Amino acid sequence: LSSSSPARDHPHRTVINRGRTTVPIASSNSESTDVPEFEHFGVPGPRGLPPLTEYLDILDVDMMKKPNESNKMNHHTALYQSDNLIIRRGQEFEVKITFNRPFNSAQDKFAVEFVIGSSPQYSKGTYIPVFPTKDRQSPWAGRITNTSDNTITMGITPAADCIVGKYHMYVAVATPYGIRRTRRDISRDLYILFNPWVADDAVFLDDEKERDECVMSEMGIIYHGAYDDISERNWNYGQFNYGVLDACLYIMDRSEMPITNRGDPIKVTRKASAMLNSRDDDGVLVGSWSGDYSYGVAPTSWTGSTDILLSYASSKMPVCYAQCWVYAAVFNTFLRCLGIPSRVVTNFFSAHDNDGNLKTDIILDENGRIDRKRTKDSIWNYHCWNECYMSRPDLPTGFGGWQVVDATPQETSDGMYRCGPASVQAIKHGQICFPFDAAFVFAEVNSDVVFYSRKKDGTLEPVKVNRTHIGRLVLTKNPGDLTRRDITSQYKFSEGSTEERTVLEKAEEYGCKREKSNPALADVDLVLPTLEISVGDDFELSVEFINRSDQERTVDTYISGNVVYYTGVSSSEFLFRTPTVEIEPNQTVKELVSVQSKSYMKQLVEQANLHFIVTGKVNETGQIITAMKVVTLRNPKLSVEVSGGGKVNEEMMATVQFTNPFTFNLEGVYIRMEGPGVMSPKFKYYSLIPGGSSLTWAEFFTPQRSGSTRMIATLDCPALRQVYGQATITIEP
Amino acid sequence: LSSSSPARDHPHRTVINRGRTTVPIASSNSESTDVPEFEHFGVPGPRGLPPLTEYLDILDVDMMKKPNESNKMNHHTALYQSDNLIIRRGQEFEVKITFNRPFNSAQDKFAVEFVIGSSPQYSKGTYIPVFPTKDRQSPWAGRITNTSDNTITMGITPAADCIVGKYHMYVAVATPYGIRRTRRDISRDLYILFNPWVADDAVFLDDEKERDECVMSEMGIIYHGAYDDISERNWNYGQFNYGVLDACLYIMDRSEMPITNRGDPIKVTRKASAMLNSRDDDGVLVGSWSGDYSYGVAPTSWTGSTDILLSYASSKMPVCYAQCWVYAAVFNTFLRCLGIPSRVVTNFFSAHDNDGNLKTDIILDENGRIDRKRTKDSIWNYHCWNECYMSRPDLPTGFGGWQVVDATPQETSDGMYRCGPASVQAIKHGQICFPFDAAFVFAEVNSDVVFYSRKKDGTLEPVKVNRTHIGRLVLTKNPGDLTRRDITSQYKFSEGSTEERTVLEKAEEYGCKREKSNPALADVDLVLPTLEISVGDDFELSVEFINRSDQERTVDTYISGNVVYYTGVSSSEFLFRTPTVEIEPNQTVKELVSVQSKSYMKQLVEQANLHFIVTGKVNETGQIITAMKVVTLRNPKLSVEVSGGGKVNEEMMATVQFTNPFTFNLEGVYIRMEGPGVMSPKFKYYSLIPGGSSLTWAEFFTPQRSGSTRMIATLDCPALRQVYGQATITIEP
Repeated sequence: LSSSSPARDHPHRTVINRGRTTVPIASSNSESTDVPEFEHFGVPGPRGLPPLTEYLDILDVDMMKKPNESNKMNHHTALYQSDNLIIRRGQEFEVKITFNRPFNSAQDKFAVEFVIGSSPQYSKGTYIPVFPTKDRQSPWAGRITNTSDNTITMGITPAADCIVGKYHMYVAVATPYGIRRTRRDISRDLYILFNPWVADDAVFLDDEKERDECVMSEMGIIYHGAYDDISERNWNYGQFNYGVLDACLYIMDRSEMPITNRGDPIKVTRKASAMLNSRDDDGVLVGSWSGDYSYGVAPTSWTGSTDILLSYASSKMPVCYAQCWVYAAVFNTFLRCLGIPSRVVTNFFSAHDNDGNLKTDIILDENGRIDRKRTKDSIWNYHCWNECYMSRPDLPTGFGGWQVVDATPQETSDGMYRCGPASVQAIKHGQICFPFDAAFVFAEVNSDVVFYSRKKDGTLEPVKVNRTHIGRLVLTKNPGDLTRRDITSQYKFSEGSTEERTVLEKAEEYGCKREKSNPALADVDLVLPTLEISVGDDFELSVEFINRSDQERTVDTYISGNVVYYTGVSSSEFLFRTPTVEIEPNQTVKELVSVQSKSYMKQLVEQANLHFIVTGKVNETGQIITAMKVVTLRNPKLSVEVSGGGKVNEEMMATVQFTNPFTFNLEGVYIRMEGPGVMSPKFKYYSLIPGGSSLTWAEFFTPQRSGSTRMIATLDCPALRQVYGQATITIEP
Repeated sequence: LSSSSPARDHPHRTVINRGRTTVPIASSNSESTDVPEFEHFGVPGPRGLPPLTEYLDILDVDMMKKPNESNKMNHHTALYQSDNLIIRRGQEFEVKITFNRPFNSAQDKFAVEFVIGSSPQYSKGTYIPVFPTKDRQSPWAGRITNTSDNTITMGITPAADCIVGKYHMYVAVATPYGIRRTRRDISRDLYILFNPWVADDAVFLDDEKERDECVMSEMGIIYHGAYDDISERNWNYGQFNYGVLDACLYIMDRSEMPITNRGDPIKVTRKASAMLNSRDDDGVLVGSWSGDYSYGVAPTSWTGSTDILLSYASSKMPVCYAQCWVYAAVFNTFLRCLGIPSRVVTNFFSAHDNDGNLKTDIILDENGRIDRKRTKDSIWNYHCWNECYMSRPDLPTGFGGWQVVDATPQETSDGMYRCGPASVQAIKHGQICFPFDAAFVFAEVNSDVVFYSRKKDGTLEPVKVNRTHIGRLVLTKNPGDLTRRDITSQYKFSEGSTEERTVLEKAEEYGCKREKSNPALADVDLVLPTLEISVGDDFELSVEFINRSDQERTVDTYISGNVVYYTGVSSSEFLFRTPTVEIEPNQTVKELVSVQSKSYMKQLVEQANLHFIVTGKVNETGQIITAMKVVTLRNPKLSVEVSGGGKVNEEMMATVQFTNPFTFNLEGVYIRMEGPGVMSPKFKYYSLIPGGSSLTWAEFFTPQRSGSTRMIATLDCPALRQVYGQATITIEP
């Protein structure tokens, strides 16, 4: 597999091993060494195979993997679409073994053996024999739970810290001449997953409602937009779909992660945070913020993770394209599929730190006008990452629980395109010295926005410090329903509290640099309203000036309207005004600015965010005043309707309708639709949708599973992105 | 430069940036944006250039970079061979500026400006103006130290935490119309290094003797062999040689390390530990333990770092080949060249941990004979890494000082081919949760060797645990002389002390797994003697059996002699005996085994180590006894003699002599020779040296520098490696 990785093709990438290690480290779950069918003890005896007839012989092994059988039910794996048995570690499962005659515990000696990866070793946990008798036990407990005629049922409990992945299974019988084994049979291959349901597992989560959401739920809601005007995006994680589990194991194989590390959720999640993006290591997703996605799928167009993971595993090439919510959503699928509790969170106004300090710099010229050439930091309107739940034996007690991992390729302070796991507790308490990358995440939620006035000689003087803008709100989906959950308080103490101050001081002890100066507050306040505007609307922006002094104030004002990416990077300025505003003592003045749709429509990018920055200089005091507001334009909706049937195995129809509300044509339009458990991803292409005209797309489908789910659809074209809609369906048994 | 990196050629390696960040992060010291020669304020005034004549004009700038001038002397940079001024941060240096008329501090305004990397920013420390007057100062202090006619001498003190690298320098004069600057002049480019001499620098080392050794010394001694039979290798670090400093900056550019991180010794050393090896990132050195070095230089053949660094910087391709001491030696050059105090240390019996536990497993069969097929861990006879000295603001107080960094590509627990900086204090006290990779280094010096007896059913039973074998001795060169310094006590408390136990328990709290069982000690001891044997000798190995019981004991013994690599990996078994030894109560028996040279000579590899493993089973008690001994065979020496002159600029001659002591011919022989400050690396090739015959190679050279130094030579061929010799020279002024 990995031979297709450029890393391997490059002559200098591989250290020549002979003489350095006895065997190359096993790092693939798909390569494997099969154990011999007969292991001769080398004691005197007949040559070749002994007369085996007189010893116990195995006629059949039944993995008891039918959905209705106990194994899949007890281990919460019935939803996985797979031909093999899938169970969770630290919990007993059963197999039936049929011999050529009744089993006699007094004389017959046998073991069930499990093998993973190449060069299996007992001491490394890659070769595990399981014995039926108390007198001899291995790290995996074994017992006979039932006997009837020639068939015994054996209960096997894998160690709660065993390697997670795909094992081969054998039954071995000891004869005086040696050990004989069943032949390799792929139908007996066994997948073992993490187990949030057992206390001994590092990912144990003692809350049934959380487990249902963070391990078992396939439907997700990801929040975006602005903190005061939040939008929702539906996502189909699809962690149980056919082939997804194998794709997740392939990701670890592709990263050449040592098999022996794959039982440790810390190492698995850290490695995955590097592998989900294509930087450094040809991982799963190629990031693009270019606006041109003609050679792949636009990030805003995906409806779920299944397509992405299956295409990576089959093509073995990174998939185009992703932005932060796509990385987070696919990472979430990976984690839930392997059994690590996880959720996608959204941080509104996320600082993008690239030099380990806690400052985002905005540079104004001496007149208070923003200096775009010199303002190089950006604040992401929002940023999505993942939290996964696990203990942290590598840290002092108290830092287990939710951990931040982030697969979006931002250069972390450690210089690699990966991030975490970072303990949320450690971030909240400023203990940013603990691995991994806690300091980086700390800056994303705690940075200050510093406005500088640039002097002629090039030096900068801080004129305003906004300590509350960044990390304004952290959201995730509420377990069990479709509502939002504000988890900001899990990342930081309330603004202005004494705890907050202590935490920031603690963080500074660990080398975080903050802006110390505290410029006097101007006695004029600037306020921008929250606006709810649809794409194509003309509207009025009212800028409010509040004079808190008892003298008149005159403000030379710069009002700048920009089309911005969700990363806060400005694409183009579509509006610029420089009014001079006079305000009577203790009065308020509203300056009205009318915005014509034609001025911004042609320049809209991506998620159609308008960013208004108002800055000004109070003539009487020379003080600088500033205000910023992001307006996320409302897009037209897709209407999704589902009709007919409503029962398992009865055909139904999903209908997507869209009307182009604009006067201009939409070109190169993709519509995508899928529904967890009811419809696999489908898409349709329309070369042109004339202005004002409508389209309807109907698809038939036959639900295989009962329960409540949703049908999700997106529409995407260069001129109009992230248009979506969904419908909830309930399927009766 | 970096366009030649395969990483860049790969279409999926680069995230498309537009819309994601305003500007790509500056990550090259060789790319740069020049500041404009005239910066118009845009105020009303004559178009184009104003009548500059009436304002201050700069006629000349003198960087005062002559070796005898104060700058290079005060900053300890006189030894660097460079055309530019090289100084250290946090300490004042002087430049002379000549104007068109006397400088008038009342009316004339000027600044000396320093710029590094592309898109320089004041707030990021990549653009720094320095002012001559108290009233306006930037992070870099400036003052006028002397004035005569039209010339002023300006003292400039770079911030003690400023970026380390190559800066462009300008002088800017403020006119009412704008700022005018001197044209870019490469002869004024300034290199700024770390400064162990000033207290404000993170690498401050308050010990003149240590500084002389760990920053200024070019000659090194690297220890290898066995802990009870230590060999020495001389090495020319050559950190001051022409081009070496630029090569070190190129290494950081090649790694695309953000310029803004290059003032932080933690980030610089961590990045460098990844870049010194070619894994992951096309770094400097390709590791090979293959024994076949026909396509490069054998690791044992190098005499210094200069060739390696210059060839990497010019070819931009990784250099073949390295093993641990080569990685450590070149890393040492990098660190000393940039001004970070560093030393090479050798750990004897170094555990190679690849799954984060503290066990090295040796598997015996039920009769006590070693099972080579199943014994997969290896113990390196020795392993070399670096220590560098710095404060650790990212950790709680008490963990600054010496830090372990290791560039040899071993897979660390973090899954990357890099290691450190890990606080030696943290390792000693078991605080292995602190970054970076402390747990990995902890295992290298604290692992246990566990002997298992393998049962027929495949399970393993521990029969002996050796807790003192690993990390037996840690050595480095003593500052100021050529003696050894035992620093084992800086890594661990004395074996068996209560502190030691506490530390191991602390480490276990952080997830280190150790072998708990404590098998009963056998009442028969096995002792192997220390042997000093030259390549080609026949010798006798005496195995001593001590019966501490008062009954007779009979031991079925397996004596195995193997040719091994220094990594402990066995190449071939050249001797195997299975005597049964009977020992009277409380008696001692010596079993003599004679070893013929012909039995091992043909199979010798690399560093000619013989590894004897004796294991046995005591019949009466069934107990297993074991003993191991590494014998490093003495190689023939090279004789190096230096004659004539002995004064600077007087020609001298170096003569290397070698006699092939064997009966067979040596083929494909390389001899290398160099001397710090007196002779650049030279080599000679001999296709064949007949058995018994001698050769002499003479080279003339002319020392440029006075002082005491050494001439180092090595001889290397497939049949005989690491033959070397040296001569000490003193050059009079």
